Order: sequence, then structure tokens, then C-alpha cells
Amino acid sequence: MPIFTAEELSRVGREMYKRVGAEPDEAATVADLLVESNLAGHDSHGVRRLVQYVEAVHSGQIQPRAKVEIEEETAATAVLKGQWGFGHVTAVAAMELAMEKAREASVGIVAVHRCNHIARLGAFPPLAAAEDMVGMMSNNGHGADLSVAPWGGIGRILSANCLAMAFPSDREFPIALDVTTAVAAGGKVRLAEERGERIPEGWLIDAKGNPTTDPSVYSTANGALLPFGGQVGHKGSGLAMMLDILSGALSPAGCSMADSPVTGNALFVQAIRIEAFRPLEAFKTEVGRFIDYVKSARPAPGFDEVLVPGERSYRTKMRRLQEGIPVEDETWDNICRVARDLGVEI
Amino acid sequence: MPIFTAEELSRVGREMYKRVGAEPDEAATVADLLVESNLAGHDSHGVRRLVQYVEAVHSGQIQPRAKVEIEEETAATAVLKGQWGFGHVTAVAAMELAMEKAREASVGIVAVHRCNHIARLGAFPPLAAAEDMVGMMSNNGHGADLSVAPWGGIGRILSANCLAMAFPSDREFPIALDVTTAVAAGGKVRLAEERGERIPEGWLIDAKGNPTTDPSVYSTANGALLPFGGQVGHKGSGLAMMLDILSGALSPAGCSMADSPVTGNALFVQAIRIEAFRPLEAFKTEVGRFIDYVKSARPAPGFDEVLVPGERSYRTKMRRLQEGIPVEDETWDNICRVARDLGVEI
Repeated sequence: MPIFTAEELSRVGREMYKRVGAEPDEAATVADLLVESNLAGHDSHGVRRLVQYVEAVHSGQIQPRAKVEIEEETAATAVLKGQWGFGHVTAVAAMELAMEKAREASVGIVAVHRCNHIARLGAFPPLAAAEDMVGMMSNNGHGADLSVAPWGGIGRILSANCLAMAFPSDREFPIALDVTTAVAAGGKVRLAEERGERIPEGWLIDAKGNPTTDPSVYSTANGALLPFGGQVGHKGSGLAMMLDILSGALSPAGCSMADSPVTGNALFVQAIRIEAFRPLEAFKTEVGRFIDYVKSARPAPGFDEVLVPGERSYRTKMRRLQEGIPVEDETWDNICRVARDLGVEI
Repeated sequence: MPIFTAEELSRVGREMYKRVGAEPDEAATVADLLVESNLAGHDSHGVRRLVQYVEAVHSGQIQPRAKVEIEEETAATAVLKGQWGFGHVTAVAAMELAMEKAREASVGIVAVHRCNHIARLGAFPPLAAAEDMVGMMSNNGHGADLSVAPWGGIGRILSANCLAMAFPSDREFPIALDVTTAVAAGGKVRLAEERGERIPEGWLIDAKGNPTTDPSVYSTANGALLPFGGQVGHKGSGLAMMLDILSGALSPAGCSMADSPVTGNALFVQAIRIEAFRPLEAFKTEVGRFIDYVKSARPAPGFDEVLVPGERSYRTKMRRLQEGIPVEDETWDNICRVARDLGVEI
């Protein structure tokens, strides 16, 4: 598969989005964040989404140049209407609003609706960590995008709701978690299908509730992802429901439902000013100490070392900044085709 | 095993704690919350802890009549020092303070340290839900109480940090999650050992990292609980680390560490005023609708119905209020012995 620099991919993405009507700032936000996902090794949420969002503009689902609107507001809270602009743009605006509130009120919570797909939640809490705050975010599918069976049940009932958090530390990278409450994201299942691979057992059940390792069951036969947790999958399922409520019921978007009129992401976005609790340096030093301590554990059989959340992504980013970003042939062909249709030079 | 009413067990517990120096209010809070855990079916965090806390008073770890102290404060945040009083009393005070702040500032976050063991986190967020707020709580072991191996590692490195949330609904019970980031709580492993049972595979590894189903390895051979998640145990492990930081680094308690000078719980406690975001009734109705919707899923093989978080506990409580609370013989013998030593009539 071909290999590109981040700049090359960003340039193509930015140009594509400008050609479909995005402001230069919007185009840069979306393209750069998609490429950032590739840099971090999360290819399922990277440039393979470039074409998807162009198509969403064409279909009217994404409205370039939409202006987000604050509907409700207190010193510490807001309800933000994304107006169906680019999801990444809405999510950045929401995190920035939460941070602005946290600067004044020590905590900022922003409930977001009418927001298009934001891809990787883990892209946004680090914006808060970079400003020495705690960042937290959860999502649902704006009531739709159903893909996950609840614990003890069959069928696509819940969206693959995610939880992401980031904390600043005195290290080179923030400690940052980004987990979907499904065993694996639907994007990973689709990627396995594209690559002609099987998926591990425990990811997917078919429409009758039987386990399967065939990823095409997800895209073509109404298969459902399982909530994470293995034998205690009620924990993943329960967490998914909590995030569904936080994201969908605090905002007017709604929790997962059978016949949602729209699809997108509803978000719960929170920033916390650390200095309301203790001196920033003390916090960052403690997090750094904790990182060292956890990494001091003897590796289990089959592991070379213990990694902390965010560490693998950081290392992948450092490596891909050096060595470039590999892109699937099929993904790249799609990008080229659509880019050329838009008149973007490849 | 003997069966008691909640009132009988509460009376014994209250009397025991008054005899070791607790104010009547403190004694009632602790005893009633332990019994509430039994009612909800969480026997590992119920009256079997009655004796443990008496011993902790005797050893000086729990200081009856301690007054909590607010060390730092903004309109939306506080740092609360528990002064090593009864953990339950500190946790109730923290949740009430968070709720008081949320009433004014729409959000309240309280970081708690010098707090003794609070047993079941799930007891506290419902206090917020009962007042029509969102309640959230996490803990660590105040740097100590190490029991969980990190993903990819061996040994007791992390405490079994928990996450609990509760949301009001238009139903008889709040939807409420309470999960430990270990596959199972250490208390359940000890309970299995007391009952002479094996534990399921995937709960425990021995000091060399080998899996075991012998619960005594936990209490006597330095076994470590595994983080939940099964094949994606990095998610449970990552979540455990996030909760460790939220609880231990925002407060001055510290995250998990090798040689903690003290043991207890550090807490992250949050309350959110729903009406800052949308009308309360709209929120509660949406949560009720979501409950119905999730429960409408066809049951998977081996299940009779899909349960939502908090539902099983609520049903167990309704049943045990009718039928009484069974208590292990060994647990009851211990309670009787200590109660009589204290001059409490059984």
C-alpha cells in the first residue's frame, strides 16, 4: 500500500473539503484531525473517512459553513446545537467552549446535538489536556447508528458509544483513554472485511444471536457488535447505556431509539480546571509518577512491557511522522477518484 | 444461614457503632448503608463489613465523630478532607456538597481525601438521582489497597477502582451503574473463599501471572485480580488508570503507589443539575423511554430478559424487604461475637 506524509494527506483532504464548500478553517480542522487519527494508528477513523464526508456534503447531511449555536447557558454549562456542520468542527467548538467555561467556573460541561459524525472521540480531550485541564467526552449516535447488542439481548439496539478522557502529565504525551463500549469499533470490522480478514471470536453475533468471525455479517446480515467485558459484558453494556444517557438525554438529541429520524453524534463534553483542586505542577508530577509506577510492573507472558493509555498512539505518531502513513490501496483509490472529480490535484 | 429483616440488622449495626463512639447519626448512616448493600444483593459490601469497621475504630484507622473539612472551594468545586472518619459518612457529605454546589452552579465536583473505606460506590450517586440530579463517583484506594494487575503486567499494581453513576427516570428506580474495573471485586473473591467455592477463570492470576480459579491465592499468595474486558482487558485497565487519576491526583491523596503510607478511598464526586440542560420531565421521560426500548430487545440464548443497570438490585431489594436478608453463618457468628463484646443485645 502507498505511504504518505501527514502533510500530503492533509493537503488533499483540505482541498477536497474546500471544493465542496467548506471554509479554509473548517477544511483544515476536519482533514487534519482525520490525518491525526492515522498518525496515532487509528486507521479506521482516519483518511478512509475523507470520502465519506464529501458524500455526506453531497447528500446534504453535512452543511459546510454551518455556525454552531448556544441554546442554553450557565457559567458552567451549555447546550450547543451543531447545525449539522462538519462533526469535527462542532466537537472542537464544544471542547473549546467547555474549556472557556472551566477557565472561569472551574468546570465546563457542554451537551451537543445536531452534530455530525466526529470519528475518533480521543481526538478532543487532549485539546483540554494541552491547556493543562482534564478533558472528558462521551457520545451516542444521536439516537441512531445502532450497532451493539445489549448484554443478554440480540440485535442492534445501542450505538457504539465511546468514552474518552485525557489528563496532562509532566511527560511528552498526555495520558489519554479512548474506548468504545463495543468490543471493537464497527470501523474495525469493516476494515477487516475490506482486507479479507476474519475477526476474533467475541466481537460479533449474527441476527439470531450466534457468534461469528465473518465481518461481512456486520455489513450485510444485520449482525450486532457485542459490548466489551467478556464474561462480565454487563459492565460494557451498562457503561454504554450510561454514556447514551449522558450524551443523548442531557442534550435534546435523544438516547438510542428504534426509528431515529437522523443520524450523527450527540456529545457530552467536559473540561475541569485542575488548579481549582490543587497546584497544576503537583498534579502533573503525580500523574508522571503514576505512569512510571504502572510501567514498573513485570510484563505478563506475551508482553514486552506495560503500556499506559495514550502511549502506543504517541509512539505510533512519532514513528509515522518519520516513516509516513500507509493507506490501504482501496481507500487511496477511492480518495483519488473523488478528489479528481472535485478537481483536486493528486 | 439465618435470615433477618433490614431493621434487625440496622439496629445491631447502629448499636455496635454507638458503642465504639459514633454519634447516633454517623452510626445510622454507616449501618443503614451496609444493610442497603445487602438489600440490593451486594452481600460482599454489606453487613459482613460491620465487624471490619469496628476493628478499624479499635485500631485507630476510623475516627468516630471526625468532622469533614473543606480545604479548597469554588462555586462549583471543593476539596474535602475526610479526617479519617467513617468512610460512608464522608462519602455522603461529599455527595451532598456536590449536590449543593450543583444547585447553585449547575455542576458540583468534590475531590475527597483522608476518607476511609466506603464499601459500595453505587450507594451514593442515587442520592443525587433521588434529588433529580445526575450523580457520578469514582474512587481509588487512597494510593493503597492494591489488588489489580494492569493489562500486560503481573502483580498487584492498581486498586480495584470503581465507577458509579445514577440518573433519575420516570420509573420506580433510578438507572444506576456501579462497576469495579477488576473483573470482580476482591470482596467477591474473599466471599467465594469463605464459601469454599472456586472462582471463574479470568478473575485472578497468581504471583507468576498464571491464571487460577483458587480464591485463596488472592488472600494468601499475592494473587492479582485482572482488569475487566476479557480479550480487550486494556479497556478495563485503562479505565482503572483514568479513575485512579481522577480520584487520586485531583485530590492530594495520590494515585496507586508501591508504598502508600495509608489506606482508604480517595473520591471524585460529581453532581449535575439536569435543568441547566433541559426540562427535568423531558429528561426523565427520555430515560424511561430508553429503558423500555433496551428491554424490548429479544433475549439472547440463556437469558429471560434484558435488564438495565440498577434493575436487578431494585428487584432484589423489593424481594428482600419482603423475605428478609440471608447472612452467612460465619459472618453472623462474627457479628454476634463482636456485638456481645461491645454489650449489644442480639
